[in-house]
Amino acid sequence: MAAIITLTTDFGLADSYVAAMKGVILSINPAARLVDVSHVIKPQNVRQAAFVLSTAYKSFPPGTIHLAVVDPGVGTGRRAVILRTPSADFIAPDNGVLSHIIQPSVTPLESYGEQVKLGPGLEAVTISNPEFWRLPVSPTFHGRDIFAPVAAHLSLGRPLTAFGEAINSLTALPVLRPRQTAEGTISGHIQHIDNFGNLITDIRSSDLPRTGQPITIEVGNRRIHGVSSTYGEGKELQALIGSSDFLEVAWRDGNASVHLNASVGDEVRMRL
Amino acid sequence: MAAIITLTTDFGLADSYVAAMKGVILSINPAARLVDVSHVIKPQNVRQAAFVLSTAYKSFPPGTIHLAVVDPGVGTGRRAVILRTPSADFIAPDNGVLSHIIQPSVTPLESYGEQVKLGPGLEAVTISNPEFWRLPVSPTFHGRDIFAPVAAHLSLGRPLTAFGEAINSLTALPVLRPRQTAEGTISGHIQHIDNFGNLITDIRSSDLPRTGQPITIEVGNRRIHGVSSTYGEGKELQALIGSSDFLEVAWRDGNASVHLNASVGDEVRMRL
Amino acid sequence: MAAIITLTTDFGLADSYVAAMKGVILSINPAARLVDVSHVIKPQNVRQAAFVLSTAYKSFPPGTIHLAVVDPGVGTGRRAVILRTPSADFIAPDNGVLSHIIQPSVTPLESYGEQVKLGPGLEAVTISNPEFWRLPVSPTFHGRDIFAPVAAHLSLGRPLTAFGEAINSLTALPVLRPRQTAEGTISGHIQHIDNFGNLITDIRSSDLPRTGQPITIEVGNRRIHGVSSTYGEGKELQALIGSSDFLEVAWRDGNASVHLNASVGDEVRMRL
Repeated sequence: MAAIITLTTDFGLADSYVAAMKGVILSINPAARLVDVSHVIKPQNVRQAAFVLSTAYKSFPPGTIHLAVVDPGVGTGRRAVILRTPSADFIAPDNGVLSHIIQPSVTPLESYGEQVKLGPGLEAVTISNPEFWRLPVSPTFHGRDIFAPVAAHLSLGRPLTAFGEAINSLTALPVLRPRQTAEGTISGHIQHIDNFGNLITDIRSSDLPRTGQPITIEVGNRRIHGVSSTYGEGKELQALIGSSDFLEVAWRDGNASVHLNASVGDEVRMRL
Repeated sequence: MAAIITLTTDFGLADSYVAAMKGVILSINPAARLVDVSHVIKPQNVRQAAFVLSTAYKSFPPGTIHLAVVDPGVGTGRRAVILRTPSADFIAPDNGVLSHIIQPSVTPLESYGEQVKLGPGLEAVTISNPEFWRLPVSPTFHGRDIFAPVAAHLSLGRPLTAFGEAINSLTALPVLRPRQTAEGTISGHIQHIDNFGNLITDIRSSDLPRTGQPITIEVGNRRIHGVSSTYGEGKELQALIGSSDFLEVAWRDGNASVHLNASVGDEVRMRL
Repeated sequence: MAAIITLTTDFGLADSYVAAMKGVILSINPAARLVDVSHVIKPQNVRQAAFVLSTAYKSFPPGTIHLAVVDPGVGTGRRAVILRTPSADFIAPDNGVLSHIIQPSVTPLESYGEQVKLGPGLEAVTISNPEFWRLPVSPTFHGRDIFAPVAAHLSLGRPLTAFGEAINSLTALPVLRPRQTAEGTISGHIQHIDNFGNLITDIRSSDLPRTGQPITIEVGNRRIHGVSSTYGEGKELQALIGSSDFLEVAWRDGNASVHLNASVGDEVRMRL
């Protein structure tokens, strides 16, 4: 079956780890369509993988299987899971890499959740049935020996419950959320810096005033007045709503991250 | 339909931008064959993308669709276009990324063209019909919301004119051409430096003397006598005709760019 | 035919070289499944390519065609070859990149072989029949003009002997092997450093004592007592058996290569 399986890992591009996973998948489902999301997630950076995955999956057709293997706890007691949502299936270690999928960030406050109960429409199982694994399983490479074959068998239409027991909660990373720090001021954070050096914050378009009031964005000691609609317009330093619906700070034809010496986690304030 | 769609972007490998485009394409044409040309074009470097694309497309079967999204003007007034040639279709912002496709560099002089009239056998349209777009269109990500879905619908056999109005000229970059600076001397430039550090000039094999006269290549303060036929032969520093028919300067088992401290745009002279 | 063809090269990701090979393959066999192993092998590093390929191919289905083009001698007298094994076909320059395929490292001593006679079950031919090449052949890009079209035609079921004459030996790199340097001491080497900074040695799990005796691993001036089974357990610096069955040295949630300032070729000792 020509199911789509996407891959997100921190395996890099110089080793054979990604190819090994693909070889295993194609051994089981020769018709699977494999699409790389990213393999240059920083080693062990579950948070970065969670963000990248969350911005990728919405563009894929319903039923796509997303495999995310950023797995510093490989071989230890951490669970491996399959999560089914109305739009896609996700296969990953239960270490928070699915945080943005299970809690679509409606809470306006900081949340330091650990186990998050699955909302309506979500189903999950632990991966515990070795029938679908590549044996013997290497304790250091579940990507090849557990996640890849499970994805391949799932793409052939096996029911979720064939792979293990149903569970009703998953692990989530503590996610900082933008919050109102004073009347008319929202304090958010840079959650990702992209290839162009754009600073993608966790402030959403819905956090902006609907009344069209003028706003000011503050990052470090810089102030940006108003929100642009394209990278090519206006001044060098600008704020705009990016393609994943987050407020981002960009430098026209340049790299905002370098110009502002900004890092993931830095505060970004929005003032009326 | 199993049409081939290639992708050339400056999106990098760490974000989900490329995967988002692929997800959109596969949502519309699940049988499309996707081939990456490069996603590590330097940000906003239209000239580099134009060169890389021009050296890739000739190896693909007729009818291949080449999508090139290096688009610093995304969301502004720049046009988006489809260009049909006898051998392939190209979809890109109209910012010069198709320069080498529309003017196959026969002019021996410098040309600083802006709008280049399409020659015989070439057809083009602006992309203006929103029927084929992913709505709402993000003003910062036409790759996902306009170029990808248009490529997918084109791969399903939609006629060119379904996407917008016919046009008869496209934007071209000012391209420096080799020129004769004295009797027996041609002055060209480094137009690309590849992964091996080979300095690929804009001097073509047809610019070399057909009479077999001895020639000297000068780059910086180095002189190379004669043209080798393979990287593995002769001295460390050598000139040869590369796989895209351009004169290139290479360092045997090493990196000419590093050894010669050379940059794109540097002059290379050929003397009889 | 939907044969799988994998690609391993030192072509990098910024040029069109890899795409050119894929375009040629798809021109001949539109149904070929293309899987990248790595294109960021260090330029001309045949030894690295040999290792990466050797750790990739075992995960692919029988009959997969593995194309490996790390080819500093392109265009010179070095042979191009096809090697058929019971599990896969390999197409490569005959420069040692297939070393680990033809001599599956059973010898416990150093071997400085050059031409290695093929063992039982292995067949090989030189690639000499231009009928299957893309003409004219660029002397600098056999990847596109010889290796890619030969792979495509092979994937369509052409017999091995259609491509050239049978041969019974291939070139192998001198491979350092672990050896016993004193009673109870085995001296091996770092043969690869992966994306995580793990130091992958040439000591195999079968070289470890079967009796469960305590062992000490020495690398530089550091000592590691015992062998862990997962990255996530125990101390920061640890030794374990990796996914390709080699002893490796890892740093928990960090980069052993950086912490130990280690390089490929460095000695690693195992003492009872």
